Amino acid sequence: MTQEGCTIWFTGLSGSGKSTVSQLVAARLRERGLKVEVLDGDVVRTHLSKGLGFSKEDRDTNIRRIGWVCEILSRNGVMAIAAAISPYREIRDEVRSKNPQFIEVYMSCPVEILIERDAKGLYRKALAGEITHFTGVDDPYEPPLHPEVICYTDGRETPEQSAAKVLSSLTERGLIEEEG
Amino acid sequence: MTQEGCTIWFTGLSGSGKSTVSQLVAARLRERGLKVEVLDGDVVRTHLSKGLGFSKEDRDTNIRRIGWVCEILSRNGVMAIAAAISPYREIRDEVRSKNPQFIEVYMSCPVEILIERDAKGLYRKALAGEITHFTGVDDPYEPPLHPEVICYTDGRETPEQSAAKVLSSLTERGLIEEEG
Repeated sequence: MTQEGCTIWFTGLSGSGKSTVSQLVAARLRERGLKVEVLDGDVVRTHLSKGLGFSKEDRDTNIRRIGWVCEILSRNGVMAIAAAISPYREIRDEVRSKNPQFIEVYMSCPVEILIERDAKGLYRKALAGEITHFTGVDDPYEPPLHPEVICYTDGRETPEQSAAKVLSSLTERGLIEEEG
Repeated sequence: MTQEGCTIWFTGLSGSGKSTVSQLVAARLRERGLKVEVLDGDVVRTHLSKGLGFSKEDRDTNIRRIGWVCEILSRNGVMAIAAAISPYREIRDEVRSKNPQFIEVYMSCPVEILIERDAKGLYRKALAGEITHFTGVDDPYEPPLHPEVICYTDGRETPEQSAAKVLSSLTERGLIEEEG
């Protein structure tokens, strides 16, 4: 069977678990011998979008570029996994429209919990005004209205449980086979 | 057999046949059922590098981005074909260093012949000073010193003959099978 590609798009606030869960999903898919590429927002910025900032326009450009790379990977049979805040619904939907197999995974976690955890210390800086244009603090986040998967990363689910939900969704869609 | 990926990198002046020959190579590879993606410099600019100009720095950034996309495609088993002027040797060699299977194809054609042909009318504009930073006119082109393939597109070879040379090189390297 030739592998069918798809785009698995993780969206959510900083610290909501996008990188962790996307890496877990990637690991599970690779164990099945599938071709997988993770496009992590921060990493991609150094390769594709050096010089871009965090204005709406620059964020949109960055997301469009990640979306385009997902598009060419998935049409060549790769499972492309994007993990990027991607705060604007309209641009995510634009990316969706160009990716025939698009699984949007919303990492749901209230910003209050993320502020409390603040693993990278970024929320503290944003609240102190040392960083501006920080999503969830002084920049908007528009949650998806109809995501294929919602992961509750506020403590209700472990990362493994969240990853399992994504894998179930891929199985339901016939993109991967049921585990024996 | 799982397909092994590679990066086939066409470099040469504007009008030297990069797009034509790369499309022919892509067509021949697709006929064999292989996964192929062509990254044409002009097309990629709209997706990855909108806003970049033709200064050395901007050209380098554009080439690095194309090189990075080739890298992630080829490590996932796709034959990535880039067709971009890519005038600077150092950046091409940088891309080569990150792409383990790298086939550099130099489209060799004297600029005098390209000026005479001038299919797109760009050389006339560059010579008249209406376009600046035009490779081969007022911007440098550094030919590869050790390309895997040289195509003589000055009239000595037809596009099909040039494409055949590229395919032979892929066969020699064990990247595709000999035709039965």
